Amino acid sequence: MTRTSSASADSITPPPAELPSEPLDAADPLASFVDRFMPAGDVVSYLDGNSLGRPLRVTPERLTAFVTHDWGSRLIRSWDEQWMDRPVALGDRIGAAALGAAAGQTVVGDSTTVLLYKAIRALLAARPDRHEIVIDDDQFPTDRFVVEGIARERGATVRWVHVDPALGVTVDLLADVVGPDTAVVLVNHVSYRSGHLADMPAITRLVHDAGALVLFDLCHSVGVVPMRLDEWGVDVAVGCTYKYLNGGPGAPAFVYARRDLLPSLDQPIQGWMGAADVFAMADGYTPADGIRRFISGTPPIVGMLPLGDMLDVVDEAGIDAIRAKSLALTDYAFALVDAWLVPLGVEVATPRSAESRGSHVTVRHPAFEKVVAALWREGVVPDFRNPDGLRIGLSPLSTTFAEVRVGIAAIRAALLAD
Amino acid sequence: MTRTSSASADSITPPPAELPSEPLDAADPLASFVDRFMPAGDVVSYLDGNSLGRPLRVTPERLTAFVTHDWGSRLIRSWDEQWMDRPVALGDRIGAAALGAAAGQTVVGDSTTVLLYKAIRALLAARPDRHEIVIDDDQFPTDRFVVEGIARERGATVRWVHVDPALGVTVDLLADVVGPDTAVVLVNHVSYRSGHLADMPAITRLVHDAGALVLFDLCHSVGVVPMRLDEWGVDVAVGCTYKYLNGGPGAPAFVYARRDLLPSLDQPIQGWMGAADVFAMADGYTPADGIRRFISGTPPIVGMLPLGDMLDVVDEAGIDAIRAKSLALTDYAFALVDAWLVPLGVEVATPRSAESRGSHVTVRHPAFEKVVAALWREGVVPDFRNPDGLRIGLSPLSTTFAEVRVGIAAIRAALLAD
Repeated sequence: MTRTSSASADSITPPPAELPSEPLDAADPLASFVDRFMPAGDVVSYLDGNSLGRPLRVTPERLTAFVTHDWGSRLIRSWDEQWMDRPVALGDRIGAAALGAAAGQTVVGDSTTVLLYKAIRALLAARPDRHEIVIDDDQFPTDRFVVEGIARERGATVRWVHVDPALGVTVDLLADVVGPDTAVVLVNHVSYRSGHLADMPAITRLVHDAGALVLFDLCHSVGVVPMRLDEWGVDVAVGCTYKYLNGGPGAPAFVYARRDLLPSLDQPIQGWMGAADVFAMADGYTPADGIRRFISGTPPIVGMLPLGDMLDVVDEAGIDAIRAKSLALTDYAFALVDAWLVPLGVEVATPRSAESRGSHVTVRHPAFEKVVAALWREGVVPDFRNPDGLRIGLSPLSTTFAEVRVGIAAIRAALLAD
Repeated sequence: MTRTSSASADSITPPPAELPSEPLDAADPLASFVDRFMPAGDVVSYLDGNSLGRPLRVTPERLTAFVTHDWGSRLIRSWDEQWMDRPVALGDRIGAAALGAAAGQTVVGDSTTVLLYKAIRALLAARPDRHEIVIDDDQFPTDRFVVEGIARERGATVRWVHVDPALGVTVDLLADVVGPDTAVVLVNHVSYRSGHLADMPAITRLVHDAGALVLFDLCHSVGVVPMRLDEWGVDVAVGCTYKYLNGGPGAPAFVYARRDLLPSLDQPIQGWMGAADVFAMADGYTPADGIRRFISGTPPIVGMLPLGDMLDVVDEAGIDAIRAKSLALTDYAFALVDAWLVPLGVEVATPRSAESRGSHVTVRHPAFEKVVAALWREGVVPDFRNPDGLRIGLSPLSTTFAEVRVGIAAIRAALLAD
């Protein structure tokens, strides 16, 4: 292994001949999809698709056509012609492409945080004889904050599951706390920190056996981990669209609710767009029968546009093929990390088995906060998460094996230079 | 008056020589701003700027540059470089351009409905010894629905003010119900239905004299009616950005909260983006000191882009000049309605005095639901609101006097053809 002594441009050249990327890219059946995405300027290795997916090349054209025609010329008439149906139509497409969900159960709108709030409130109200919300301490901050806020205002109890981040949340851990007082169990499908993938069908069975309801946060799995929400009987799920669904920064989130549970779910933010008859302008709120009842205000149409094209691409590639490439990319990342970073004192925080990981690999080192800032300046873009985690997020459709190699070589060079 | 017998293209030609628009357009100091907006296709008269503002010509270019550079090339680095500050930076610009609000009190994000929910919950919690929410029955449905939902979940009482829509909500009407049990008074600054403009400073004084807090919904006034929130001591205000601020369909809303009240306002949807230290990923939620505490989830960056350019245009024109043109346009609309529509049985629902109206004129006739559908097909675009209201919404920067004349002539022709 060639050691370099500074983080100059030269130093990010990977060691020659070791673990070459060329055979992997040459054998990649999804290789051609990389060209669907906009060029990334000075970025030589984008390793943060788990945080913000890259835009498609068609996106500017899509936005221009929208401004010129749908908004600029059809004007308010577009609400009748297409926008009123857009939140459910787009939700249905997410359901078909990525969730294993039949139509009429998924809707797009609001932020993940707001949808988590609505969903947890609705689920808690659907189990009025129970008072506990179960979550684990490895969950994304917004999930924890929303649950704590709801528990305080509703007089519910938060039951914490203590998780070893390296092992992730498991059925066994949950079995110790889920019981007759449990109303809702919130699970992050893939951990934002470690990349651990939870066993969705087994957890759903456990929660249902206890008479409780389960809510999955799909932010770090949707679009990259296949799932079958309908078949597994998941009650409610919420996810974002700006990571592996490339919807753009702050693109609206989505919520799925199981069809036969839906009529018993009343979310608390009653707005005109979730009413049974939107334009009745009537006295008193009656929620829509279907999944529209999770909508509150006017749907964020502009923010939904990039997502539509990405769902076409996901459909074309197929979620199983995307998962296969995700596993190949993360396998390759593990190999490079083991060869180049572990000898420098880096620890791997992500489970290694295919059935227990998502599409990002997290590595830990005390120098990473400083190292990530330096890498960003030279166009190598992973992200950093407190206290010492560097996440290598591998969005299968836009990432080459070569890019993984360049990126991990740069991390190595930066650590050596530190 | 020439009577026409059908709604054919010929029939929308206005009666010659009567109430000409040319002198008004010739004397309009803001006339040149009309060319800042995208061409509107087949639309010959857009009378629905009160519902959806038209896009600016610069908007496609703005979106393309954003996708190419900020999102596509800077990628996740843009959060540090500009997006994290965007919600408050844009809020400050709305405050300066349209609200009479100093910096640090306004933030953009969520839908109007979600922000109303957060604001009412926060205000109610800030008056824990009081249990009444005062609203009137002329308010927009979402306002009424949100209040009813909150009252039910918090055990509060809704005190309804019954309003004659033609007269609007007044200080006298409110004085009859606001009292020692009143926690919050919600007022629609301009009525969506009648266009009535409430007396914001007088209502604020009345509410404060009773020891209560006031929340204004600015959806139908922001960008077209000057206001001085700071000077008048308004507690909280919420408004949308897709009407007279031309932010695009479903563009995010904003909330203003008075600086010295802000520390006592805790909104219930605790999310990572409203936390004091967003990236601490800490245990337990501590709200940000400033107006960021009203944010919950990831800010909707894509949906904020058109708004930024429109605020430049509002600044350039000046809110007082915009108001002057709004009054001139609505005066002209009244004159045309009186000459051409009142003789056909149309009633005017909007107050006529300048100090009591916003920027839309509502007229009533039993045939309007049918008439509006026909008008839309021929490129004349007002909107309809149950049960019999046709709204002529006049967005000053994008609307000519000629367009008002063509539109009202078309309404007349359609009524004659009906």
